[in-house]
This record gives sequence, structure tokens and C-alpha cells, in this order.
Amino acid sequence: MEGEMRKTEQKIVVAVDESKESMDALSWCLSNFFSNNTNNTLVLLYVKPPPPVYSSVDAAGYMFSADVIEAMEQYGSEMVNSVMQRAESVYRNFETHINVERVVGCGEAKDVICGVVEKLKADTLVMGSHGYGFIKSKFDYFCRVLLGSVSDYCAKHVKCPVVIVKHPEEK
Amino acid sequence: MEGEMRKTEQKIVVAVDESKESMDALSWCLSNFFSNNTNNTLVLLYVKPPPPVYSSVDAAGYMFSADVIEAMEQYGSEMVNSVMQRAESVYRNFETHINVERVVGCGEAKDVICGVVEKLKADTLVMGSHGYGFIKSKFDYFCRVLLGSVSDYCAKHVKCPVVIVKHPEEK
Repeated sequence: MEGEMRKTEQKIVVAVDESKESMDALSWCLSNFFSNNTNNTLVLLYVKPPPPVYSSVDAAGYMFSADVIEAMEQYGSEMVNSVMQRAESVYRNFETHINVERVVGCGEAKDVICGVVEKLKADTLVMGSHGYGFIKSKFDYFCRVLLGSVSDYCAKHVKCPVVIVKHPEEK
Repeated sequence: MEGEMRKTEQKIVVAVDESKESMDALSWCLSNFFSNNTNNTLVLLYVKPPPPVYSSVDAAGYMFSADVIEAMEQYGSEMVNSVMQRAESVYRNFETHINVERVVGCGEAKDVICGVVEKLKADTLVMGSHGYGFIKSKFDYFCRVLLGSVSDYCAKHVKCPVVIVKHPEEK
């Protein structure tokens, strides 16, 4: 059959972050990949931002003292837990048993997501359209228009099918 | 439940064209949306290019005489049939009965696809990553880099989730 792509045990990576949109992406994934097939594996991927480039001995070290760096790392760990717990509350209510793996990466989101999808030989990547790139300023907006979003990048660079989900209010 | 998006009867639009990649997109769609649920509806969407802007009374009318325009329309109709038959051969071999609707649009592919998805209130759009935009020249390549592909545009502009599928050889 032309274009045969069937596979009974799929590995589906969902890139989750602090946004409600990424939880919608997870929910979409559960409804469409896990409602009738318990052999699929859900991989929850969270990417922490890269560590600051300044060290405590940098000329601007007073801005990133050991205490501040530690506080930032602490905040990052708390964020991981918060997002993973939120994701868990989404799939816990799902009636089917789901095989779940959690992966936490660190670095530029687009590179880490593409790298993990490649490394795990994932069958599908599911993510929100605006994930890992909240618009906070005109500069952010300019960057997104010029460089595209993380989902744009991933859709272009990963080999597997990519599902881009939008939060209803952001449609 | 946060991000609840479940729906038992989904309308899935697959944008098909002459490429093998779009048949892969169709196959992916069948495997993931129709293997366990026969209540979903598959909408096969083909978009014919817009008619030439020159009429038979144009200064360059000799280039687009009535005969040539008729021949182009004839070619367009044959292409529709060819693509739809190819798509049929993909879903005919699928073991489940599938509700299929065929839609043929005419115009700029990106606008027609977004318009049809909106009008039908589709639940998901599935398409190939390079559909409706084969690179034939350096100019085409430049345009794609600058303006993005049809799938980029659709992923940004339609409200529903968008699945972008790649042909294995083009990964």
C-alpha cells in the first residue's frame, strides 16, 4: 500500500512547558493516541533554559553571585516539578493506563526538542504552537516574526510527523 | 480536566496533491485517526491552481487562447481525478469502513486550505510538509525560505491542530 506508515507501538513525545497550550497539546495527544491503544508510550519532555553565561567570577559577577545562580537553579527545578505535576493531573484522569516516560532537557528548547525526538526515534512530536516563546516585548515579537517559533523550527527539522496544537483562546 | 479536548466524531481534513508525501500524510491519518474509530470523517481536499490572469482577449492572448485555457482546465480536471484515485487506492486497502468526503478547491493553496478547514469546522488538518510548493528553481527556494511553505502558513493560520508529515526520503 502506498505510503504505509502503520505501527502498533508508537512513542509520542509531547513537549510541555508552563503554558496552558502545552497541556492542551497533551490532552489532544491522549485523546488521539491513547484512547484505544495502550501499547503507545507517552514521553513528557520539559526543557529548562540554558544556564546563565556569566559565572560568579565574571566582571558582572555581582549580578550572578553563587547565591543567585543557586536560586535560579532551584527555581528551574521547581518549575520542572510544577509542569510535570500539572501534566500528571491531565493524564491521571485519563481512563486508560498509559506508559509514561519523563525527560528533562536543558538548553535551547528548539535544539533540545529536536535532539530528544531524534535520539528516542520518536514516532510523533506533539507541541503547542507558541511553546517556549512567550511574547513579552516588541523585540520578542520581532524575533518571532523574523526567526519563527519553536514549533516552526521543530516542524521543519524533526524527521517524524509533528502535531501543532493551539490553545482555543489563542486561535 | 485541564485541556479537555476529547470528541468522538472528528472531521479530519487531509490536503492531498501530486506528491508522494501527501499520500504518506493520508496514510498517517488513516493509521492514527481511523484504525479504531469509524465515526470520524475523512475529508480529502485537493486545490487546483488559480486560473491564469490573462484572458483570451488579453494583449498576450495568443499565449492563452481559448484552446489553451480549455486544455489547462482539462489538465486540471485530470489532475484532480488522478490525485483522488491515488488517494482512494490508499484508503481502499484500509480494513475499516471510512466515511469519505471529497472537496476540490481552486485558488492559492494556503488560502483555500485554511478557508475549507474553517468552513467545515474541521477538528484536525493533516498535510505534507512540502505540499503545493515544489522547489523547481533557486527563486522558488528563495521564496520558501523568505515566505515559508504552505504547511508553515496553515500551521499558523488555522484554528485546529495541524499535523505536518514528511516523506521518509525527504527527511
